[in-house]
Amino acid sequence: MPINLFEYEELAKKQLSQMAFDYYSSGAWDELTLRDNRVAFERMKLKPRVLIDVSDRNLSTSILGQSLQSPLLTAPMAFQCLAHEEGEIATARAAKKAGVGMTLSTMSTKSIEEVATQGNYSDINSSSNNSNNTPRWFQLYIHKDRDLTSNLVKRAYAAGYNALCLTVDAPVLGQRERDRRNEFTLPAGLNLANLASISDLEIPTEHGESGLLLYFAQQLDPAITWKDLAWLRSLSPLPLIVKGILRGDDALRAVEYGAKAIIVSNHGGRQLDGAIASFDALPEVITAVDGQVPILVDGGIRRGVDILKALALGASGVLIGRPILWGLAVGGEAGVTHVLDILRNELSVAMALCGCSRIQDIDLSLVR
Amino acid sequence: MPINLFEYEELAKKQLSQMAFDYYSSGAWDELTLRDNRVAFERMKLKPRVLIDVSDRNLSTSILGQSLQSPLLTAPMAFQCLAHEEGEIATARAAKKAGVGMTLSTMSTKSIEEVATQGNYSDINSSSNNSNNTPRWFQLYIHKDRDLTSNLVKRAYAAGYNALCLTVDAPVLGQRERDRRNEFTLPAGLNLANLASISDLEIPTEHGESGLLLYFAQQLDPAITWKDLAWLRSLSPLPLIVKGILRGDDALRAVEYGAKAIIVSNHGGRQLDGAIASFDALPEVITAVDGQVPILVDGGIRRGVDILKALALGASGVLIGRPILWGLAVGGEAGVTHVLDILRNELSVAMALCGCSRIQDIDLSLVR
Amino acid sequence: MPINLFEYEELAKKQLSQMAFDYYSSGAWDELTLRDNRVAFERMKLKPRVLIDVSDRNLSTSILGQSLQSPLLTAPMAFQCLAHEEGEIATARAAKKAGVGMTLSTMSTKSIEEVATQGNYSDINSSSNNSNNTPRWFQLYIHKDRDLTSNLVKRAYAAGYNALCLTVDAPVLGQRERDRRNEFTLPAGLNLANLASISDLEIPTEHGESGLLLYFAQQLDPAITWKDLAWLRSLSPLPLIVKGILRGDDALRAVEYGAKAIIVSNHGGRQLDGAIASFDALPEVITAVDGQVPILVDGGIRRGVDILKALALGASGVLIGRPILWGLAVGGEAGVTHVLDILRNELSVAMALCGCSRIQDIDLSLVR
Amino acid sequence: MPINLFEYEELAKKQLSQMAFDYYSSGAWDELTLRDNRVAFERMKLKPRVLIDVSDRNLSTSILGQSLQSPLLTAPMAFQCLAHEEGEIATARAAKKAGVGMTLSTMSTKSIEEVATQGNYSDINSSSNNSNNTPRWFQLYIHKDRDLTSNLVKRAYAAGYNALCLTVDAPVLGQRERDRRNEFTLPAGLNLANLASISDLEIPTEHGESGLLLYFAQQLDPAITWKDLAWLRSLSPLPLIVKGILRGDDALRAVEYGAKAIIVSNHGGRQLDGAIASFDALPEVITAVDGQVPILVDGGIRRGVDILKALALGASGVLIGRPILWGLAVGGEAGVTHVLDILRNELSVAMALCGCSRIQDIDLSLVR
Repeated sequence: MPINLFEYEELAKKQLSQMAFDYYSSGAWDELTLRDNRVAFERMKLKPRVLIDVSDRNLSTSILGQSLQSPLLTAPMAFQCLAHEEGEIATARAAKKAGVGMTLSTMSTKSIEEVATQGNYSDINSSSNNSNNTPRWFQLYIHKDRDLTSNLVKRAYAAGYNALCLTVDAPVLGQRERDRRNEFTLPAGLNLANLASISDLEIPTEHGESGLLLYFAQQLDPAITWKDLAWLRSLSPLPLIVKGILRGDDALRAVEYGAKAIIVSNHGGRQLDGAIASFDALPEVITAVDGQVPILVDGGIRRGVDILKALALGASGVLIGRPILWGLAVGGEAGVTHVLDILRNELSVAMALCGCSRIQDIDLSLVR
Repeated sequence: MPINLFEYEELAKKQLSQMAFDYYSSGAWDELTLRDNRVAFERMKLKPRVLIDVSDRNLSTSILGQSLQSPLLTAPMAFQCLAHEEGEIATARAAKKAGVGMTLSTMSTKSIEEVATQGNYSDINSSSNNSNNTPRWFQLYIHKDRDLTSNLVKRAYAAGYNALCLTVDAPVLGQRERDRRNEFTLPAGLNLANLASISDLEIPTEHGESGLLLYFAQQLDPAITWKDLAWLRSLSPLPLIVKGILRGDDALRAVEYGAKAIIVSNHGGRQLDGAIASFDALPEVITAVDGQVPILVDGGIRRGVDILKALALGASGVLIGRPILWGLAVGGEAGVTHVLDILRNELSVAMALCGCSRIQDIDLSLVR
Repeated sequence: MPINLFEYEELAKKQLSQMAFDYYSSGAWDELTLRDNRVAFERMKLKPRVLIDVSDRNLSTSILGQSLQSPLLTAPMAFQCLAHEEGEIATARAAKKAGVGMTLSTMSTKSIEEVATQGNYSDINSSSNNSNNTPRWFQLYIHKDRDLTSNLVKRAYAAGYNALCLTVDAPVLGQRERDRRNEFTLPAGLNLANLASISDLEIPTEHGESGLLLYFAQQLDPAITWKDLAWLRSLSPLPLIVKGILRGDDALRAVEYGAKAIIVSNHGGRQLDGAIASFDALPEVITAVDGQVPILVDGGIRRGVDILKALALGASGVLIGRPILWGLAVGGEAGVTHVLDILRNELSVAMALCGCSRIQDIDLSLVR
Repeated sequence: MPINLFEYEELAKKQLSQMAFDYYSSGAWDELTLRDNRVAFERMKLKPRVLIDVSDRNLSTSILGQSLQSPLLTAPMAFQCLAHEEGEIATARAAKKAGVGMTLSTMSTKSIEEVATQGNYSDINSSSNNSNNTPRWFQLYIHKDRDLTSNLVKRAYAAGYNALCLTVDAPVLGQRERDRRNEFTLPAGLNLANLASISDLEIPTEHGESGLLLYFAQQLDPAITWKDLAWLRSLSPLPLIVKGILRGDDALRAVEYGAKAIIVSNHGGRQLDGAIASFDALPEVITAVDGQVPILVDGGIRRGVDILKALALGASGVLIGRPILWGLAVGGEAGVTHVLDILRNELSVAMALCGCSRIQDIDLSLVR
């Protein structure tokens, strides 16, 4: 059994098709940002505090009034049925069991409703003080077809999702060359579960091209601007989270236009190769926003101690992407559960070794 | 089919003779500057802007009042018939089709006139507002024989070239050891097309030496100075561009002596090994010149996003060297067209992902 | 015969079981801190002084009024009988012969009393001006069972140990994945010599886990705080040394709570992976403490010149860990003696080449 | 035929015994300084000047009123007969032919007088304005036997050497582990040519040790100090040069005690491993001395452009060490001549490409 997230990746690589593994693991162009996302965490050195009672550690926290047993959510990742037949449902169940958040992708292979039903989301919005009120976010891509988009938001709200997470770093799809070489498309039997019920949208195929790239070019809207956030917010009472910010000025603008949280992200190195590592972009965003809304970060987190580093810089939580898929590929729901368990355990040890009993004890003085 | 410029290089390497590939790909001495030219671009990190309407991107720009469909020219490179029998003519046609500029080398294997005729340059200077007014520059080496030099300028002007690009970083030829080991010289059937019509000049051969190095030592003038620019400018109405500047003070001097544009370059790492990467030299030159004339840069650009990085630092455009030769080697005119297409497409994606619809939107705030 | 400490490691690796070598050599998680501990020394450059009479070099020094023939002690390391049947006794004899200090681990495989008897500690505390008054420190882990802990301190004092060295960087055990893969536990015949006499404590075993980690979790107390130092000091007249400090503020706090010396350490990279290299943490601690108590450092020292570097930054001495074990594995007491001899000789040469005849001549101006 | 100094090293390695190659090529301990000496030059980037008449380049310069056709001397290196039977005589002839300086080692395998006779030094000191007045320096190690030392100086003066170069970075010999493994000693037939005539001194042998290290320990004096320079200066009218300075304060002290030139050196990385790269130490020394005496540098120079870099920082010249031995091993006198020719030619090209016609044109503005 894998004992860390790197071993999960190795094992998943053996179990997945080349096309699926490449789709999940690759980055754009030369994968410089993909690698730098990881290295950025390794560069940061910690100065632990000692002789503090850490016998009773509590990793729970809350973001937007939503409770987390540990400060993390699964990142929105498309096509999870490529990894395991239960796909997003398995992820949802594992997240629920672990008491962490989940973000469902617009491009999921299980529908908004299936995930909500299986994940038992129904009562979330009706009982805001419920201890069960964990982040169950719906990630949104805005399609050119605004009715389709609006429908997605309404379905997510109706199904019990408790925030809307707008991806803003993908006006066009990043060029992932491994997908292109593989002529990536969904295998027979998988489809865009949220979109098929509305139209006949499917991942197109074309010789020498990634089907996903074609889909993006045909269906998604590269014209959206800050002003569209008002329209988006009008579609439901759900709080709006903006994902894909790497600059202080954009972060401030997001707050100004009503975002209730910001996710510092470069889309796992899959969009603009050459973009700053998300962890390296965190300080500028934290400084600019100055506590007005919570800041999360994703990209390159592979150890619990990385979460501590992000929190030390001022993040309120992190999103975990590819490792969730490796868990899914290796063991379905149980695999995701184990991945989350490893992260939680590593974070707990890292906190103990840094003299932190609670999430709030993690502060800037811990980093060099 | 190659999908990026690195794959073009790999494929070209297989198709070219060792002597030709080495001539094109090598740098001087230990090739430190050659490598650093590339790494300099990889070091620079971007901070993209989001939520800007990038649905309608326009990559066109102009330099010296000359139009470009994307902000690039092919760099002046000698002996293009080593890569493909149509040589510089194929490059000219591909550049014209792509709406980008071309710089013809003094050391070309197709003559000034052949390239102009095949590239349809004839009407360029007669119609300055013509949309066809793209950069068709002639790169000049000053020979010890000043009449020969003067003749080259006059022929270029007569043939419809619209700027003169003086290379100033080669008073002597850099020592490229691979050429020396290969005893580099032109194969039978190829010659210095611009010079053969005037005299019997040809690339000499000598055991254990690069023929090109001998040619330089015999024919070219290491004594030219800033004062010679006045003479050069007097030979034709063509605007003078100085190529091979790496310092702010030299850039200012170029402006003072009448240069209408400057190309920051270390000759692709082929001259002074140990010279600063051209991309790293850009900020000092940009600052010194302070907008008086446009600044271009070449050396190490292999991705469209590298062009964006150069423009973000303040460059008006870039020159693309070796990748053009790889395209030529792999597919002649069609290969060059594809290489230019890849760069344009990558730049377009990079702009979209940085929130830039037009070339002018690319600014310094995008770089870290 | 090995001629440096790296060769000792290679040879030891061949002679030890995989489980023992891994236990000794590994670090926590990704072993980033383990590697950085070493690289930190390699990064530091020296500016030697010349033309000073170095014919008569004296490496002796004192710490807490205790004499050292060279400025080093063996670090507290558990389970030395894994390396050689004489274990900690061989180390004690070699240290005594070399005139350097030794720190006995709570987790030793020879008891406090055995080591004291064989190492001839009996008369140390009775004759404080004795030239034999070398550091014979007892390293302490505080068990949840405070009587057991108190007993350990009293035994150490009674047996002639002359300082108590409290490890503060291990409220929980670091996750050393090689141990986990090996399901590390003590082989039959070895036990926790200091603890077995009191109770039936032994290293537990469990499938897929390090036994040491389980022992820590079961027996050691993660709740100790600065205030417990007063209790600890009340148990004996022994001076208290705090080991495992990486911050200036913690160092000051240690002084405030009565520590008589501080050891800057990250536990050889075995606890918090991602922690700053101990050598890199030294300047902040030195500056904060400002001479109030002596500062020692361990982690990554493999050459005599590393000791000089640490002393140049202001350390009073260093602790040597793993290389002692390699000496033990290769040659028992003679191996440790040789390792200490190599270090002493290298330090002597380094001092000569830096223009230092005495330990006090090593100053900050020697480092860049 | 090798075309650069790296190829000379490769070829020499094939032709020399392992013991001889190791003796020449190795550094102390972990060879960190050995490597850093080279990398320091590669790190430094140049900003060349253009459009300067470089048709007529003059590489000649002078140091201490002694003429050099190019700004370099061969470094003092022991035992040159290990590389070629003509040893130091071949080096002297090649240096003379090239118009560069030579420094003869105390530990030479050809005597002071043989080298002077064969190198035609006889008339040097009698005709100070002679164009033949090139640096013919004698490097001195001070033996415990002061008469022996005094005799060496007097013999050097009598034989026509024109400066005394005192090595100050070797009060004890650095620990070169390859020599130790090889039990380095001189093969039968070779001896310390300068010392054998006085006594029966020879390189001792001992199992598991470098004979040279034993010789140093037995014969050379680690007690010399700045005050001994006065005695040394009193022995002859020769100007005194101090070799092995890496600090500004030591450089100033050398000037104060009568040194007429300083050589910034770490003994080719063979003494204190961990010492700053000599090239990196240059600026501090240049700044401290502020033009009072000329500063030279050695260590890591493998390209003519490295000489330009050293001169740009303010050095008056450089010493070339190991590459001379590679030339000697490959081709005796002709090999050394070729090595010197390569360096001269590369420097000439580097000067042309930096816009420098004369040595004095090389200034600080060329380096980044």
